[in-house]
Order: sequence, then C-alpha cells, then structure tokens
Amino acid sequence: MDLKKFKFKYQLRVRSYEVDWAGIVHNAVYLQYFETGRIEYLKHLGIEVSYQNINTKSRVVIVRNEINYKHPARFDDLLDIYVRISTIGKTSFTFESVIVNPILRKYISDNISVHVWLDEITGEPIKVDDRFIETVQNYEGDNLKFI
Amino acid sequence: MDLKKFKFKYQLRVRSYEVDWAGIVHNAVYLQYFETGRIEYLKHLGIEVSYQNINTKSRVVIVRNEINYKHPARFDDLLDIYVRISTIGKTSFTFESVIVNPILRKYISDNISVHVWLDEITGEPIKVDDRFIETVQNYEGDNLKFI
Amino acid sequence: MDLKKFKFKYQLRVRSYEVDWAGIVHNAVYLQYFETGRIEYLKHLGIEVSYQNINTKSRVVIVRNEINYKHPARFDDLLDIYVRISTIGKTSFTFESVIVNPILRKYISDNISVHVWLDEITGEPIKVDDRFIETVQNYEGDNLKFI
Amino acid sequence: MDLKKFKFKYQLRVRSYEVDWAGIVHNAVYLQYFETGRIEYLKHLGIEVSYQNINTKSRVVIVRNEINYKHPARFDDLLDIYVRISTIGKTSFTFESVIVNPILRKYISDNISVHVWLDEITGEPIKVDDRFIETVQNYEGDNLKFI
Repeated sequence: MDLKKFKFKYQLRVRSYEVDWAGIVHNAVYLQYFETGRIEYLKHLGIEVSYQNINTKSRVVIVRNEINYKHPARFDDLLDIYVRISTIGKTSFTFESVIVNPILRKYISDNISVHVWLDEITGEPIKVDDRFIETVQNYEGDNLKFI
Repeated sequence: MDLKKFKFKYQLRVRSYEVDWAGIVHNAVYLQYFETGRIEYLKHLGIEVSYQNINTKSRVVIVRNEINYKHPARFDDLLDIYVRISTIGKTSFTFESVIVNPILRKYISDNISVHVWLDEITGEPIKVDDRFIETVQNYEGDNLKFI
Repeated sequence: MDLKKFKFKYQLRVRSYEVDWAGIVHNAVYLQYFETGRIEYLKHLGIEVSYQNINTKSRVVIVRNEINYKHPARFDDLLDIYVRISTIGKTSFTFESVIVNPILRKYISDNISVHVWLDEITGEPIKVDDRFIETVQNYEGDNLKFI
Repeated sequence: MDLKKFKFKYQLRVRSYEVDWAGIVHNAVYLQYFETGRIEYLKHLGIEVSYQNINTKSRVVIVRNEINYKHPARFDDLLDIYVRISTIGKTSFTFESVIVNPILRKYISDNISVHVWLDEITGEPIKVDDRFIETVQNYEGDNLKFI
C-alpha cells in the first residue's frame, strides 16, 4: 500500500506477552494492533467509539480481514500504524492499514478490513450513515473512493 | 468453502475471556482458533510441531491470512474447525479452514492462510520439503492441488 | 493445596499462542485457565453463567487473585484444573484451584480467587445469594467452610 | 500501597480487546499491564530485557502473583502503572505495582510479584546477581528493604 495516501498514524510499542515462542509478534496480535489503529483513527475524526455505543446504538460489524505479513516485529519494537478509510460502498466501508517499523525502516504488515452497517432491529445491511460519510470525506478528501 | 473436501475437524468451546464487549468472539481470536486447528491437523498427520522445532529446525512462516466473518460465535458455543491443506506450490502451501457451529448449524467463519518454506540459514524461500508433501498427499488425496 | 478435597476437575490442552518467548505458558494465561475451570465448575453445579447474566442480573465481582507458579507448563501439555469453592463468608466466597500435569505428575500452579456479591443497584456488598450457598453446600459438603 | 514510595511510573491506555463482556478490563489483562510496567522499570534502570536474554542467559522466574482489584478500568481509560522493587532476599526479589486512573483519581488495582534467581545449568535458586542489587539500590535508596 502507498503510504502517501495515509494522513493518520498511531504509534505503539511491542509488549513482551505479544511475542510468541518463535521470538516474534504472534500473527493474531496484528489484528489487535490494526483494531487499535482503527479506533484511534475514528477518535481522531471525532467519531465516538464506546462500550455503550457498541452495545446499544452501533450496528457496524467486521465481515472480512486480509493480512499480509512482510517482516516480523519483535519485542520492544516501536511501530507506526498507518490507517485510512479507503472506500465507502452502499452498505459497507473499507479500512486500509499498514504497520511500519520507523527505526528499521521496514514494512511489517498490512491489512484490509471490511465493515458493514446493519439495521439495529432487523440486523439487515442498510445504507452507511450520512454523517459518518461526510466526516470521513472531509478528512480523506480525494483519496476516498465510492464504490 | 465446501465442507465435503475436509477430512479433519477439531472441536473446541468458546471461553469467557475470548468474548469481547459486544458479547461475541473477538475478531482476532478466530486466528487463534484457526491456528489451533492447523496444529491439530499437523499432529494428526504425524508432523511434529514443537517449541524446539520452531526455534531450531523449522523455517515455515505465515505470510498471509484471509478471514471471512459470517455469523458471530458466542460464549460457551461448541465449534467445529474443519482444516485441510488445499494447495502446495513451489515454495509455499495453503491451508483452508472453516469454523461451524454444529448445534446451531451455522457457518461461522472461514480462513485461508499461506505459509512459506524458508532456508534455515539464508532465510530465502526454498522448495517445500518432500516428506511433508508426501505426507499431505497421502492424507488429502485428489483434493490436494499443486500450483 | 490438598487435591483430596477437590471433587471437580476440568481438562484442557496448552495451545501454541499461550506459550511465551521463554517457551512456557505466560504467567497471565494461568488466570484464563483458572477462570475457565471456575466457569466449568459452576456449569457442572447447574449455576448459569452467561453474557446476559453478567450484564443484567449478576453482580458478582472478583476482588483478589493469588497465583503460585510451581512448575512451568509447555506447549501441547494436557492439564487438569481442580476447582472447588472452599469458603463462603457473609458477602463473599473463595475459590481454590490447582493445575496439575497428570502425565508428568507435576503440580503446575495454584490459585485462590475471592469474589464479592454486590447489590445490582447500589453496587454495595450484600449477603451471598441463599440458593447459591445451598447449591454449593450440597455439592461440597463438609469441605465447604463458612467464615 | 503508599504511592509516595514509587519513583517510576509508566502510562498506557486501555484497548478495546482488553475489555471483557462485562465492559471492564478482564482480570487476567492486569497481569499483562503489571508485566509491561515491570519491564519498562527495568529498561529505565538500564537492565536489559530481551528475547535473547530470556532464552540464553536469564534464569529469573516468576513464582507468585497477588492482585487486588479495587475499581474497574474501562475502554480508553488512561492508566498510570507505578512500579518499584520493594525487597531483595537471598535468592529472590519482589516487585510492588499499583495501577491508578489519574483522570478519575481512582486506585484501580495493585500487585505483588515474587521473582527467583536460578542457576542457568542446575535450575536451583542462587544468590541474586550483585550488579542487579547495586543498580536497584542506587535507584530505590532507602525504600528498598533486604530480607
């Protein structure tokens, strides 16, 4: 993925218990990193993410994850997570994220995640919220594609 | 994915701490389930997976994961993980896995993971081990594709 | 702890991702094992543990954990978790649990956890539920102490 | 525990996947926070903690954890982890740690962990390393007790 398209990044440090028996970050832990990046992105855009929200109003669910592992991350590594919403469809939207080690200048991993907006009562897919679209478009500008 | 092609399944039960604030299994936990399924599959075929192996002889790394989330799994759900090696390439092989809830007869999630065989010293991709190929072919038969 | 006092045990197998960089089960993972043991114990006694329960009716909270690590558990080890409620006080009760490797005949770890019953509205400690006490007493008999 | 005795603190933010089905940080996750605090403390004192170290030279093992849960931490809470080595014995030393929410001014949780120095070859307890003792004493001064 082209880092030039990303306006937001979040930094974290690899913790001891995230490293597996091979001495590298476990492959499932990257999904925790990418989720942390997405949540910080949404907070940065002023979009509320909360326990109450998740359990009462929100009906946005994740339906697909793709992760490429390019270079292993190790204990105590500082990692930059680049995050953007790349596309918005009729009832879904897509995040792209990249993890980079800025010290070693290594491309560690990337992720595409697809999220669907559901009706709170019927559970059926519905049109992505207008205010959400506007907020994302204001932030991402021309890099945001509609499909 | 077509469950008829799978000869191996492993059963587990969803634990309390795997459930997130939305009351469903967290999206990253499925990668732990799929890995558990793959390891039990390899053990079933007589292929040793061990800490010693991982740190000294083995140079098989995961380079890609795809996960589709179809239906949420919940606390205490019994889950069947279907696992097979579907394709073997020159230097890589691919697992396909499906998680099903056999009580509710629900298709929960599926996963494709790609693994690359590396030279122990140079770290460069090398031909998949012949004994590994033979063992998998004996087990999977015609369902195994070479690409 | 004296294993003779335990009537209930639950068996599980150490998974790959629970093993840390030192090749042994990470110290925090034992709390997941002990919780799994406690939940299976409560299910065995017919006491409902559920997401709905936790979020609406239940007001039992954990206030203390003590864990002793005697011998490390390793990947693929089969572990027996012995669980019992050892004491019931006015507003609290205590679980004792032991993890044993039955193949290697090793005492792996033990745990004491203290749980307090809270009023659903005020959040203040209240008397432990009578039906809960009766159920536990019927199961544990003379091994259960009241303090 | 008396916060005045602590010279070191480390700050982190509660992540989404650390919150359980009750909407609060899972009881096992605190052990991950406390370990993160201890490692940052050791790094601050110039004591190397590394994967290589753990697997070749180090023979320091954790033998006991005590955790008190006073007030729940929630998603996105900012937490201060206060850490100090409080006592050094003949073959062991003890960490005390406290987690505080500095915004809400709440005492969240505290932890005592006991660590034993082992001979690399025999695995038997040996005298705590002299250079380690000196480094800790220089940092902690009179707050450090010898037992």
